[in-house]
Amino acid sequence: MIFSGLPCGGSMVKQRRERVKALEKKAGEEKAARNKEFVREITPKAENYSQWYVDVILKTKMMDYAPVKGFMAIRPAGFALWEKIQELLDRRFKETGHENAYFPMFIPQELLHKEAEHVEGFAPEVAWVTKGGDEVLTEPLVVRPTSEAIICDFYSRWIQSYRDLPLLINQWCNVVRWEKSTRPFLRTSEFLWQEGHTCHRTEEEAEEETLRMLEVYREFMETEMAIPALVGRKSEQEKFAGALRTYTVEALMTDGRALQSGTSHNLGQHFAKVFDITYLDEDDQLKYVWQTSWGVSTRLIGALIMVHGDDRGLALPPRMSTYQAVIVPILTKKDRERVLESVRELSRELGSQVRVKLDDREEYSPGWKYNEWEMRGIPLRIEVGPKDLDKNQVVVVRRDTGEKNFIPREELNSYIPGLLEQIQSDMLKRALEFREANTRSGDDYEEFKRVMEEERGLFLASWCGEEECEEKVKEDTRATIRCIPFDREIEHKNCLVCDKKAEEVVYFARAY
Amino acid sequence: MIFSGLPCGGSMVKQRRERVKALEKKAGEEKAARNKEFVREITPKAENYSQWYVDVILKTKMMDYAPVKGFMAIRPAGFALWEKIQELLDRRFKETGHENAYFPMFIPQELLHKEAEHVEGFAPEVAWVTKGGDEVLTEPLVVRPTSEAIICDFYSRWIQSYRDLPLLINQWCNVVRWEKSTRPFLRTSEFLWQEGHTCHRTEEEAEEETLRMLEVYREFMETEMAIPALVGRKSEQEKFAGALRTYTVEALMTDGRALQSGTSHNLGQHFAKVFDITYLDEDDQLKYVWQTSWGVSTRLIGALIMVHGDDRGLALPPRMSTYQAVIVPILTKKDRERVLESVRELSRELGSQVRVKLDDREEYSPGWKYNEWEMRGIPLRIEVGPKDLDKNQVVVVRRDTGEKNFIPREELNSYIPGLLEQIQSDMLKRALEFREANTRSGDDYEEFKRVMEEERGLFLASWCGEEECEEKVKEDTRATIRCIPFDREIEHKNCLVCDKKAEEVVYFARAY
Repeated sequence: MIFSGLPCGGSMVKQRRERVKALEKKAGEEKAARNKEFVREITPKAENYSQWYVDVILKTKMMDYAPVKGFMAIRPAGFALWEKIQELLDRRFKETGHENAYFPMFIPQELLHKEAEHVEGFAPEVAWVTKGGDEVLTEPLVVRPTSEAIICDFYSRWIQSYRDLPLLINQWCNVVRWEKSTRPFLRTSEFLWQEGHTCHRTEEEAEEETLRMLEVYREFMETEMAIPALVGRKSEQEKFAGALRTYTVEALMTDGRALQSGTSHNLGQHFAKVFDITYLDEDDQLKYVWQTSWGVSTRLIGALIMVHGDDRGLALPPRMSTYQAVIVPILTKKDRERVLESVRELSRELGSQVRVKLDDREEYSPGWKYNEWEMRGIPLRIEVGPKDLDKNQVVVVRRDTGEKNFIPREELNSYIPGLLEQIQSDMLKRALEFREANTRSGDDYEEFKRVMEEERGLFLASWCGEEECEEKVKEDTRATIRCIPFDREIEHKNCLVCDKKAEEVVYFARAY
Repeated sequence: MIFSGLPCGGSMVKQRRERVKALEKKAGEEKAARNKEFVREITPKAENYSQWYVDVILKTKMMDYAPVKGFMAIRPAGFALWEKIQELLDRRFKETGHENAYFPMFIPQELLHKEAEHVEGFAPEVAWVTKGGDEVLTEPLVVRPTSEAIICDFYSRWIQSYRDLPLLINQWCNVVRWEKSTRPFLRTSEFLWQEGHTCHRTEEEAEEETLRMLEVYREFMETEMAIPALVGRKSEQEKFAGALRTYTVEALMTDGRALQSGTSHNLGQHFAKVFDITYLDEDDQLKYVWQTSWGVSTRLIGALIMVHGDDRGLALPPRMSTYQAVIVPILTKKDRERVLESVRELSRELGSQVRVKLDDREEYSPGWKYNEWEMRGIPLRIEVGPKDLDKNQVVVVRRDTGEKNFIPREELNSYIPGLLEQIQSDMLKRALEFREANTRSGDDYEEFKRVMEEERGLFLASWCGEEECEEKVKEDTRATIRCIPFDREIEHKNCLVCDKKAEEVVYFARAY
């Protein structure tokens, strides 16, 4: 044992004394920091959006920066949201016939290099393992930035007959992409995600699967996260490295920037051909499979914060929140017992219908708790004090609107579940209204540039299909084509940029 | 796009032709392999236990070997067991007040090196990341072999006051330990696990937590996995690198070898002191926290296979099995429709009580399906054919005993859930009987050596407490001290090895 607690020599004694001094100094400083903590505010959204975002995340203890730049720890308050996302998405994956599996995190360099577009897309941003134990590896290993290469290697052995198809597998895991500029949840060098990887007999079946999972993402985001999701196809330039076609769900953040929230790729036979994934069909012919892959990540937590948060902190849609309602008793010396008794009963009753938290800590005041739970985004607060007991009522406060209502005690059990549903749909409605108010269209390039600079938001416009025009928009405005929507809301005319005959109608936006 | 499908030159055409030839050759070989597949048997347990274990795993498609030695992919059949373990343990962790979080996978070398025993224990078996993107790292990063070092670094910032304690956090993740000799699920270079990391105000509280989580593991293994678990303390030599005390749950495999299935460590203040994890107590004094850590891994899947499996393959306790009962219809041309109708109704009815799978695939015969589901270890098979319909009965076959019963159709709904409970407790009972029959005790060292060589199993004996005797046993028999049980089942006499006065009574065994 190293720390026996016994000083055992002159220098040890001295070291110990210095250590104690340092500790005392730390105690003083930390106390000061703690006091400061209580007065530190969240920077207003309007003042500095990026700082607001980081303040909300740090104040609500959702994450913390790691000692290695670009990495983060996801703290319980943040991870609970990821667990909710996992639970709600995993159920949908299983309902659509998928099973989970786990593939090795290390990919031999040789495998990554097999598909030319894929390696070109990912090689610059991978982490390399070059030593294992005391052995220098003859072939360096790549920490997965995505798992197509390693999974295709397995699939080439697992798939033999048409009977093995479709193969519908998903994996929840961590991935690493060496990012130069990072931002909590939105872009970190390590992140958590799910990646679905499927094989099919026909091109049609693969395309169906690709669109099915895109729809799963869209429906999940709207139903559970209350985030309206724009779906469509990516341009050639924006598609996944190695895919035939990439589809995307895009959400608009409250600073007018778009966030790519999930993608679904039809991989065609690109990987099947280089990894030799073949099956013997019923007609006794050996054929290549058709593949898809699709994923969402911890980035969705960032979307949740930005779409619904405000200057008071986080605001969670009821379906995503660990606790849907928090009960705060107002305890006075005289009425302590009867208030506690009442809120405990209330908590038990409500607990059978909604996820409820009774905050009966006595080291914090009710006011402190109101702020705390508001900041943490819990959809409903229920206050119960002696006066409320006398009037046989409780106070119910909505996090999203701040609306405060006095509800008769006996109506509460039927009132709360309905109110939570109302909050859920109101939050989606408001997000949708925001997006609609921030979606413009037109064919005037100067006006487009002004909008992207001053107002941001989405801009629907015609595009000739040439990479040159796409590049020019990026250079002039930093905006990119977010997606080519399935339903053309406007007729396409001439290209916004070059004025030639347009091929597509697309959404432009500046994006995270 | 790389594969346009168009031959575009002489050499391309030649390459294409060769490719097609290779494919045709592959088709022929694979067909042959497939036919062979159907006759390949599982090696009998008694003939070659190791081969039996690997055969069961490969035949049931639980895992596959990765291109990098020592790594594996966990296929859906195996991963479903891990999901079950996660679900059932995670519930218990939350019930005991723990929250989940996620910490970075890469640990700066400097952090790992802080605690001397810890680095000595883990440094020889870590994987090193030395390059990120195109940048050679100035300080190499370690891929976590366990997360004490990185977590303590965060905790030193997260904990300030006694109000922050206890801090009860768990993480589900992958870890890497560069192993020289590996075995599926039991010892692989990458594996999945959970690691709990908690901080407390007092030594007593930390010890309580350590033992509480040990008991969670024991109870989980017995209740859910039907594996009797021996609990106790590890010897100094066998304890976790950096811990004050390590406790363990040990299970006996059917080849007489023990498997360390989970450990719970009281870390004392070792890490707190080097990572400076202090809190300001109510008395205004700055104090070091007391810590614990505890974990189980995908190794548990190996235990499940070895404890319950037999020459026909896997045998799963009902609580661990994705499907608890499989319904196999016997379809004849004449009665096809009415049998299908009946099994569908049956499946719906039973489905509300147990996890049931209706296997109505028509490309496989009933006999083929019986073997398949038996091999995959599904606890119950329900057969329904035209004759059964006529007699208003179904055939129910237990996987664990092979027992076959004809059950009146109308009794089935009440019969099945009870039978599943019976199977669950019978499986635990048999495993317990096996362990008891394979636990010996005594004080004759020659007899002990013979048992460890010829019969293996557990051997309860007195030990003087000296590392020298522990080492001698290891050299002579390859057995180790598995644990020092809490309840001494025999009085300690003189040391099994040196015959001096004994300090402890311990379980010896050869272990995985």
